[in-house]
Amino acid sequence: MAGAPVAIIMGSQSDWATMRHAAETLEALGIAFDARIVSAHRTPDRLVSFAKSAKADGFKIIIAGAGGAAHLPGMTAAMTPLPVFGVPVESKALSGQDSLLSIVQMPAGIPVGTLAIGRAGAVNAALLAAAVLALHDEALSTRLDNWRTRQSESVAERPSNES
Amino acid sequence: MAGAPVAIIMGSQSDWATMRHAAETLEALGIAFDARIVSAHRTPDRLVSFAKSAKADGFKIIIAGAGGAAHLPGMTAAMTPLPVFGVPVESKALSGQDSLLSIVQMPAGIPVGTLAIGRAGAVNAALLAAAVLALHDEALSTRLDNWRTRQSESVAERPSNES
Amino acid sequence: MAGAPVAIIMGSQSDWATMRHAAETLEALGIAFDARIVSAHRTPDRLVSFAKSAKADGFKIIIAGAGGAAHLPGMTAAMTPLPVFGVPVESKALSGQDSLLSIVQMPAGIPVGTLAIGRAGAVNAALLAAAVLALHDEALSTRLDNWRTRQSESVAERPSNES
Amino acid sequence: MAGAPVAIIMGSQSDWATMRHAAETLEALGIAFDARIVSAHRTPDRLVSFAKSAKADGFKIIIAGAGGAAHLPGMTAAMTPLPVFGVPVESKALSGQDSLLSIVQMPAGIPVGTLAIGRAGAVNAALLAAAVLALHDEALSTRLDNWRTRQSESVAERPSNES
Amino acid sequence: MAGAPVAIIMGSQSDWATMRHAAETLEALGIAFDARIVSAHRTPDRLVSFAKSAKADGFKIIIAGAGGAAHLPGMTAAMTPLPVFGVPVESKALSGQDSLLSIVQMPAGIPVGTLAIGRAGAVNAALLAAAVLALHDEALSTRLDNWRTRQSESVAERPSNES
Amino acid sequence: MAGAPVAIIMGSQSDWATMRHAAETLEALGIAFDARIVSAHRTPDRLVSFAKSAKADGFKIIIAGAGGAAHLPGMTAAMTPLPVFGVPVESKALSGQDSLLSIVQMPAGIPVGTLAIGRAGAVNAALLAAAVLALHDEALSTRLDNWRTRQSESVAERPSNES
Amino acid sequence: MAGAPVAIIMGSQSDWATMRHAAETLEALGIAFDARIVSAHRTPDRLVSFAKSAKADGFKIIIAGAGGAAHLPGMTAAMTPLPVFGVPVESKALSGQDSLLSIVQMPAGIPVGTLAIGRAGAVNAALLAAAVLALHDEALSTRLDNWRTRQSESVAERPSNES
Amino acid sequence: MAGAPVAIIMGSQSDWATMRHAAETLEALGIAFDARIVSAHRTPDRLVSFAKSAKADGFKIIIAGAGGAAHLPGMTAAMTPLPVFGVPVESKALSGQDSLLSIVQMPAGIPVGTLAIGRAGAVNAALLAAAVLALHDEALSTRLDNWRTRQSESVAERPSNES
Repeated sequence: MAGAPVAIIMGSQSDWATMRHAAETLEALGIAFDARIVSAHRTPDRLVSFAKSAKADGFKIIIAGAGGAAHLPGMTAAMTPLPVFGVPVESKALSGQDSLLSIVQMPAGIPVGTLAIGRAGAVNAALLAAAVLALHDEALSTRLDNWRTRQSESVAERPSNES
Repeated sequence: MAGAPVAIIMGSQSDWATMRHAAETLEALGIAFDARIVSAHRTPDRLVSFAKSAKADGFKIIIAGAGGAAHLPGMTAAMTPLPVFGVPVESKALSGQDSLLSIVQMPAGIPVGTLAIGRAGAVNAALLAAAVLALHDEALSTRLDNWRTRQSESVAERPSNES
Repeated sequence: MAGAPVAIIMGSQSDWATMRHAAETLEALGIAFDARIVSAHRTPDRLVSFAKSAKADGFKIIIAGAGGAAHLPGMTAAMTPLPVFGVPVESKALSGQDSLLSIVQMPAGIPVGTLAIGRAGAVNAALLAAAVLALHDEALSTRLDNWRTRQSESVAERPSNES
Repeated sequence: MAGAPVAIIMGSQSDWATMRHAAETLEALGIAFDARIVSAHRTPDRLVSFAKSAKADGFKIIIAGAGGAAHLPGMTAAMTPLPVFGVPVESKALSGQDSLLSIVQMPAGIPVGTLAIGRAGAVNAALLAAAVLALHDEALSTRLDNWRTRQSESVAERPSNES
Repeated sequence: MAGAPVAIIMGSQSDWATMRHAAETLEALGIAFDARIVSAHRTPDRLVSFAKSAKADGFKIIIAGAGGAAHLPGMTAAMTPLPVFGVPVESKALSGQDSLLSIVQMPAGIPVGTLAIGRAGAVNAALLAAAVLALHDEALSTRLDNWRTRQSESVAERPSNES
Repeated sequence: MAGAPVAIIMGSQSDWATMRHAAETLEALGIAFDARIVSAHRTPDRLVSFAKSAKADGFKIIIAGAGGAAHLPGMTAAMTPLPVFGVPVESKALSGQDSLLSIVQMPAGIPVGTLAIGRAGAVNAALLAAAVLALHDEALSTRLDNWRTRQSESVAERPSNES
Repeated sequence: MAGAPVAIIMGSQSDWATMRHAAETLEALGIAFDARIVSAHRTPDRLVSFAKSAKADGFKIIIAGAGGAAHLPGMTAAMTPLPVFGVPVESKALSGQDSLLSIVQMPAGIPVGTLAIGRAGAVNAALLAAAVLALHDEALSTRLDNWRTRQSESVAERPSNES
Repeated sequence: MAGAPVAIIMGSQSDWATMRHAAETLEALGIAFDARIVSAHRTPDRLVSFAKSAKADGFKIIIAGAGGAAHLPGMTAAMTPLPVFGVPVESKALSGQDSLLSIVQMPAGIPVGTLAIGRAGAVNAALLAAAVLALHDEALSTRLDNWRTRQSESVAERPSNES
């Protein structure tokens, strides 16, 4: 989406099942985004091209999700000055432990702000992007506050046997 | 420091050995910060007070480091709309694996952008904060670009037996 | 329940599937309890309010269950002098390993007596609460002894292919 | 110590380096205790004898520390109705991960309230015992409150480069 | 079974789904056995009674299976001079990692020969028992050799898409 | 040693620091043994030769220690009907977790009775071998009983600050 | 297949569900192969025979897949100078973590080039074999380049909700 | 080195302490190599440049070592058709577990033949490269055979207390 402040990138189509939760959260907060498949391993040229032009293309924040030996978030961060938030997608054999370590254990010099494994991480990457954008967007700040208030209010006082 | 955009908080004095690397990196980039000890467990009132007033106090970003059952980053994030970046401090028995999971595995709704265990994570929390602040600070953006360029240039072409 | 000696708190409705086993065990032992949802992250004010007034409200023991980056038991323990027993709820990706470490690895100064991951831990949190209450309640002590005796007697001598 | 409400037991002399922190914490709170070596594996008769008579001997709470395949806390809990708090002693090869799982993963029916690996766990086992005893001991309750207040007050506001 | 050289003990009825593979393997090798449920935690008296009389009762080898905080093999070994072989039963949350560490990480002085997690371990405990008994039983030695030969011969030369 | 009932084999000279504890324990029990270096990877012919002739050479039990991708115990067990007890030697990077899994997780059909990682495992392999040999050696049975009795008696009643 | 440059070996029929992906990938690249079941544990003679004659039989590369205590790749590498690529088959209890460590943690002197756990590893073992063979086979080099190009081109630009 | 068939690349100067063992092994086998520092994160342009021209530059095999979130081997493999062998360098907090998973768990399509963590992996990467090159270099094949023979012969028959 032209002029979108947030890019959501992911290593493969299968990651969309996780990353769509980031997209839906951004939508709920009224934040435009652009979702793309960028495979660090299968389309390295696309990765270089995307990452190097991301700032010039007008993005402000990049959300990157990947699984297994998940190099997409870190390699993107290596080629853009923009903040990159990483979402470890749950992998089959190791349940995302490999994804998590591949994303979070970046060496000093190139940061990736890493969220939780799976759906929760995707939702939270969107919320963290919103918190960053809200620093200079009062309307968004209000929407985010409202979202958080509704979230707090939606927590029932007592557990129900119905659910 | 009055008007500092970044708060560095940590669970105990012993975490400072790690978190000072965040402070030094911010200093190198010319970003003011305020470093405090806020123990989620031993000073919960201080935590509530700090987190709830952080935005009004003028902070824009909070860097929180803690080890073991590290609740400081997540609890801070629960009480402020500001972006929170978490640094897992290396713990004695489990080498920071407990710190990492306690910080990164936040449930959907309350994000903590988590960095690597230990010193690298502290440096990178500062760099990520800088990347966020640089979105609306051209001078800082230039300083950060220069920092990254110097970092790239400092990588020798060939390994040396001298070091 | 007014005057109940045990509070069962949990981070979300979904934790009830685990924590109801604590409730059922307390019921089987004739111990009154009050079950509430208190999310450390989504309802931090409710957490502070609950924890700070728990003793004055007449509770003697708090059973707290949570999953993932499970901060509820430890944060509750930080704000009440009452004994807190923690139940790591099994998480999706990491099977409760994150929950366990987030609860048990508390720093010196604020204890959480931690039970096993999942249903067994919920049952045992209730039994541990009963053991504590039985120290000053002879009738309960007898009921607990009987419960344990029946448990021992219910163990068949030989395995059966029927089950 | 005759009439001591707390027993501290441990699997071997080498565990004392960890468990003495439980002893020192109890002393600081004015709680009498009896410290013994009871090896589940090398002195099983002593274990049976101790556990079966612990209640009649006047103990109210048992703190049990062990490392590796740590069976002492769980086996003690199997033979006494008293509350048992377990301390995983840090093991050589696996850093206490084996100790932790051997203690905390008890099956439904026999609870062990488990604390953190190592020194922090030993201190906290004593504090948890104190919290239990304080339920019916106003003087102790006051001492424990004071201890916690002093702990909170001892947390410096800002990190120091001196330490 | 009177005079059986092998005892198969397990912590609960649910372990039989795993341990029956030990029984079936012993049967295939013509080795008599006695299968019992002995819960270290729920029936500690039965454990003491069984373990202390196992040698006098004529057993030569004990196969013990348990899951989670699996104390049965180690505690049995603590109270009998007979060889004890342990089978880690797969646990729900941790897939038997807790069972394995609780059984294999015994301290110097009390050995448990530990087999693989789950069915393979149960089969192999029986085979290891057979190997021990075959040291002084030529007929069994021949049967075991034949069993192994048939096993080798049953391995197809090439993989089949049919299975 | 000619006619020795126990063979101690290990993958490299460096494993002797661990395996010598098996040797010393056998010596203390008056059991003859033969200690050899047999590298599954660097001397596979020696492994085949040793394993295939071990029974004919008069050995009754094989104790095999190795670290990392530890194939020695399992491959030996594949080529001899004798009982094989495996000792996971502590590895540098992974502290013996790789050694343990490589030895204990044998498939159904070829058992290795696995002991603890490191020194404790080496001592216990010797004790387990002794327990097996004692099944048909009354004098050894008595020596083993005495060893265990002395072990029990050597456990002090109370911890000492002197050690 | 006579004259095939690649041998695919696996520990059991059940591994074929994983290893067939190596076979299919080789087929897609027009590389002949020979697939065999060679159990290190159940058919050690077959292993020795295969590995020692593999080079003389005309093979250039060996792909070996196995699960659990996976000794096949390493033992094959010990007995052939040919390059060996190992595929950790996903195991039941430990999800292939045991397979991975048993294959990759080879001691200095005998290398196994290890791929990912499960299907991805099997595919990649074939691709790595192709890369090696392509060093001296221009036609294959072109086919491999084309395969990689098609792979890159098959990555959609944007995620689809249809899949 | 002009015309060298092997490139050794590593993420930082500090990795040379590990990777020099690859260099020394290649030297011992008379294989020319070129050692360079190529940081995937700090010098991504250098990475792209190196990887894309590696084949044209005459390299046949690439050995890549990195630690933590180790993206160098996989990203190199994404941009060259040459075989890439990865060496997980031991990391500080997680002992190379992060390095290993980041390198080995590559998705289907882009293989990295992964060796053991640390020094053993570096030596073995060189040996695996030698095995590949020896497929079309009889003289090297003979040198490698001799190296392996000497290795086998250097294994002492019996452990020595002197070392």
